[in-house]
Amino acid sequence: MLLLRRCHSLTRFGLLNTQRHQVTPAVVSCAVRLWSSSSEDGGSYQRAHGPSWRHGLAGLLAGTGAVLAYGLHHHKAEQQDSSTVQTIEKTSAFPIISQKEVTTHRSLEHGIWVTFKGGVYDITKFVAMHPGGNKILLAAGGALEPFWALYAVHNQEHVLEMLSEYKVGELSAEDVKKQKAIKTSDPYSTDPERHPALHINNLKPFNAEPPPELLSDSFITPSAIFFKRNHLPVPQVDAASYHLHIEGLPGGVLTLSLEELKTRFPKHTITATLQCAGNRRSEMNKVKQVKGLNWGIAAISNATWGGARLRDVLLAAGYSPDVAQRAFHVQFEGLDKDVTGTTYGASIPLNKAVNEEGDVLLAYEMNGEDIPPDHGYPVRAVVPGTVGARNVKWLGKIIVSTEESSSHWQQNDYKGFSPGTDWDTVDFKSAPAIQELPIQSAITVPTDGAVVDRSSEEVTVKGYAWSGGGREVVRVDVSLDGGKTWQVAQMRSSEKGQAPGPSPPPGRAWAWKLWEVTAPLPAEAQELEIVCKAVDNSYNMQPDTVPPIWNLRGVLSNAWHRVKVKIREDDDEE
Amino acid sequence: MLLLRRCHSLTRFGLLNTQRHQVTPAVVSCAVRLWSSSSEDGGSYQRAHGPSWRHGLAGLLAGTGAVLAYGLHHHKAEQQDSSTVQTIEKTSAFPIISQKEVTTHRSLEHGIWVTFKGGVYDITKFVAMHPGGNKILLAAGGALEPFWALYAVHNQEHVLEMLSEYKVGELSAEDVKKQKAIKTSDPYSTDPERHPALHINNLKPFNAEPPPELLSDSFITPSAIFFKRNHLPVPQVDAASYHLHIEGLPGGVLTLSLEELKTRFPKHTITATLQCAGNRRSEMNKVKQVKGLNWGIAAISNATWGGARLRDVLLAAGYSPDVAQRAFHVQFEGLDKDVTGTTYGASIPLNKAVNEEGDVLLAYEMNGEDIPPDHGYPVRAVVPGTVGARNVKWLGKIIVSTEESSSHWQQNDYKGFSPGTDWDTVDFKSAPAIQELPIQSAITVPTDGAVVDRSSEEVTVKGYAWSGGGREVVRVDVSLDGGKTWQVAQMRSSEKGQAPGPSPPPGRAWAWKLWEVTAPLPAEAQELEIVCKAVDNSYNMQPDTVPPIWNLRGVLSNAWHRVKVKIREDDDEE
Repeated sequence: MLLLRRCHSLTRFGLLNTQRHQVTPAVVSCAVRLWSSSSEDGGSYQRAHGPSWRHGLAGLLAGTGAVLAYGLHHHKAEQQDSSTVQTIEKTSAFPIISQKEVTTHRSLEHGIWVTFKGGVYDITKFVAMHPGGNKILLAAGGALEPFWALYAVHNQEHVLEMLSEYKVGELSAEDVKKQKAIKTSDPYSTDPERHPALHINNLKPFNAEPPPELLSDSFITPSAIFFKRNHLPVPQVDAASYHLHIEGLPGGVLTLSLEELKTRFPKHTITATLQCAGNRRSEMNKVKQVKGLNWGIAAISNATWGGARLRDVLLAAGYSPDVAQRAFHVQFEGLDKDVTGTTYGASIPLNKAVNEEGDVLLAYEMNGEDIPPDHGYPVRAVVPGTVGARNVKWLGKIIVSTEESSSHWQQNDYKGFSPGTDWDTVDFKSAPAIQELPIQSAITVPTDGAVVDRSSEEVTVKGYAWSGGGREVVRVDVSLDGGKTWQVAQMRSSEKGQAPGPSPPPGRAWAWKLWEVTAPLPAEAQELEIVCKAVDNSYNMQPDTVPPIWNLRGVLSNAWHRVKVKIREDDDEE
Repeated sequence: MLLLRRCHSLTRFGLLNTQRHQVTPAVVSCAVRLWSSSSEDGGSYQRAHGPSWRHGLAGLLAGTGAVLAYGLHHHKAEQQDSSTVQTIEKTSAFPIISQKEVTTHRSLEHGIWVTFKGGVYDITKFVAMHPGGNKILLAAGGALEPFWALYAVHNQEHVLEMLSEYKVGELSAEDVKKQKAIKTSDPYSTDPERHPALHINNLKPFNAEPPPELLSDSFITPSAIFFKRNHLPVPQVDAASYHLHIEGLPGGVLTLSLEELKTRFPKHTITATLQCAGNRRSEMNKVKQVKGLNWGIAAISNATWGGARLRDVLLAAGYSPDVAQRAFHVQFEGLDKDVTGTTYGASIPLNKAVNEEGDVLLAYEMNGEDIPPDHGYPVRAVVPGTVGARNVKWLGKIIVSTEESSSHWQQNDYKGFSPGTDWDTVDFKSAPAIQELPIQSAITVPTDGAVVDRSSEEVTVKGYAWSGGGREVVRVDVSLDGGKTWQVAQMRSSEKGQAPGPSPPPGRAWAWKLWEVTAPLPAEAQELEIVCKAVDNSYNMQPDTVPPIWNLRGVLSNAWHRVKVKIREDDDEE
């Protein structure tokens, strides 16, 4: 808590946009074209692109917020990004210190010293304030560079300014030379190329979402623009040598090759929507700064997944109902690792995993092809109806356990709190880990700030709606007047022109619905405030407004979605 | 459709209250005494009680609670308990007083009179000393017996001695006789007697709810004050000749006597909250007239139910997973009939009925006793997590079917619609029958319009929270300033003083939670707008306001609950 609290001052809104300029052109050249010239104010960027964008990426929102905050929380980075960062000015006022001397300062008792670009820093007093917690101690007595390479958030001017306050000396020239000889390799250098249409919220690790109007174009989201939410570098997994380990069951450890997973168990196919807990976080940021990536409305996508049922694999590994008397969770470990070797991890309740109607997959196919690297190649968990964070990618290990995953992401992240809870008072143990997500919907077309000509006489509004836990969306209400009056949208649950399949059984509606309504332009209005809200078959409704559901991590942002649209009278066209 | 539309004119709010005046004294004499003179505006009842109510039932807290909790917990509703109690000596020294006269003494201003065993008592001066606080006012103008039946603690000699000090007269012989007399040819004449504390929304069929402040007193609602929602007269069922028929399964019709139901299947006990779809409908009526009984916030209660599992009975009747390929619903038929012989009916999804974790009961016990007539004697369906309407009482027949129940209540009632849908446009086929209910909470203490003294320095707010589908309530936020700032309430999931049981497994949290928060009175405020909102473990939240969830049947009313409370400055007390 303490650490998180102290980092509050580092996570101010204004600091965040700096990071956009760090995009490496070679990696996502198109993205650079889209974003590198954005001004500090994301909003003005949209205006700069003129009318064509007003109907388009305008909705991608003012990037703002939580890029930095996210980084502070998860600490990822990369060294060459720091080329854009001011170098600390050297001064001869400091003594020359050897690496050997630095190495002796590796404990709070003897002080914590680190080096950075030839400077020596005594950060003993800073340790307690470090937003990344004790991980800073991994660098004790050594260089910061390799760690900052993983946690790109450090590559900002104000971080360096802070560091400079702790300077105690200059590293000897000889030791500087030695350091340079050791190549700091970029752990993200093997990340795959991405589609240039994606709106990048963070580059390392890669986090990006598609433009909303593309999202609602297809019932099945093409994998290339399916939102990407990585916590760490994409691991390079060799399918031929890949093995999945299943532990914690009476049969001992079961190890399966990819081939065995594909051939020993029947292939099961489901269409399921995944949504990031932080989808629509940017709306919370407008209320008050939260920590996290500044997602727009498109950290949600829908795909068809093929794979073995987790239930079948657990049964093969020795699961029987007796196990449920002592074990309540199924933990997943990814093959993606941080610099300390810690893997991404999460868990789901055992009953979701083993229930015949839970439909949890160990998926090796996405939209009819091998799962792409960004989505978990070769095998990921697909836990339909459950927050994206539990759909662990690059799955390496499954553990049936009495306990939830002990990972940071299960214990100290991805939980909801009262709007009155801040970083001084939060107790992560007091809230359950997010599993099923609440009812959600958003407007993808038109985008906020769009202009509709009076002569068009009507406006078409499109969007998506989905609810967690397999609860089917049964209605979407749309208002053109800010919520005073409502009409019911048409919904579709298949690709355009295709007949929808049979209704899913109760509790197994895993896929979103796309919806659309065309309404006459109100005669008097000069501006429309378009609002949508969805209802699921438990008749859960979305809350009206953002502030009462605001929470310090900016998760679970599911208030009514609102966009404002101007009506241009024909006279204005001159 | 047509029929429903036509009945519109019969069900206006104004007429509902008129109906209160139709209460037949012979049937519920006590209730009449309590309510027959209540004004058209139900809210004014409390206000009519003057200053004592202004302290808001907030004051009920301290000390008094334990005694009452004891009484509620043991809820001896049997009159015969009073046989252990000394009979009050009659004396001719007292004047004869009519019930009519007693009824006029229902406020501190006009005095608080009550009757007990033919005696009339002016307890005005005792009210402030009553260990149970203002609850004594519930009996004002009427008989003490029904309340003492609920609170067994009164059945002690010293209590009667105290009471005798306040004697002012003898109840007229005629009124004593009336109290005892009953019987008409009315189909409702065999309806059971009810507890006078109940707030009657409709007499025939009987629909009533307990006073909110009683509701939150006990985790398990005493059966006598458990909300009553009958659609038809209470049928007289002879337990000895009772038979339950199970149809639609390969084994043919299975017929079970009550004895067989009790002995052939293991008894399963669950604590589950039932809620009427129309709970809190009165708040929708304030927005715009809806059709339906004008329920307050107490059409919800919590009980412990014992019975056979429906799953076990269906298996015995020939259910196998194959059946689920062709049948999707389980229909229930009640033994309660209208004048045409049509029985009450409803259905639930088959997977809820047969799932091991569905916990659907064919219950023959409520709170450890035979189910009372109003709650379905001798057998009712208890479908935890599901709207009250599907928990069919006086169960006569169970049919496994490809179709939902064809009953009016399944097809053309108990469904939710958009606020834009009216009786001219509604298509009942377009909406699913309500099954699981959404997240809900309400404030039971203080009541709207209560007054808190500045000198008390703090205010205690109490209420309940519950969600359908077995989703556990994980947090209740309370605001004293209309929703601007929030604090988190303490929750309890057991009787006061008892340790709560282990957390329910995921998806099986069938019981509500009671909650409480004590907060300092804001220094500047003259009035508090107290608001509550709950969150379940799917992180579903309640909508902020009523108008956007308004629907023509006034069901699913689960917006934030709000009560206004005045703060009386000490100066005002003069």
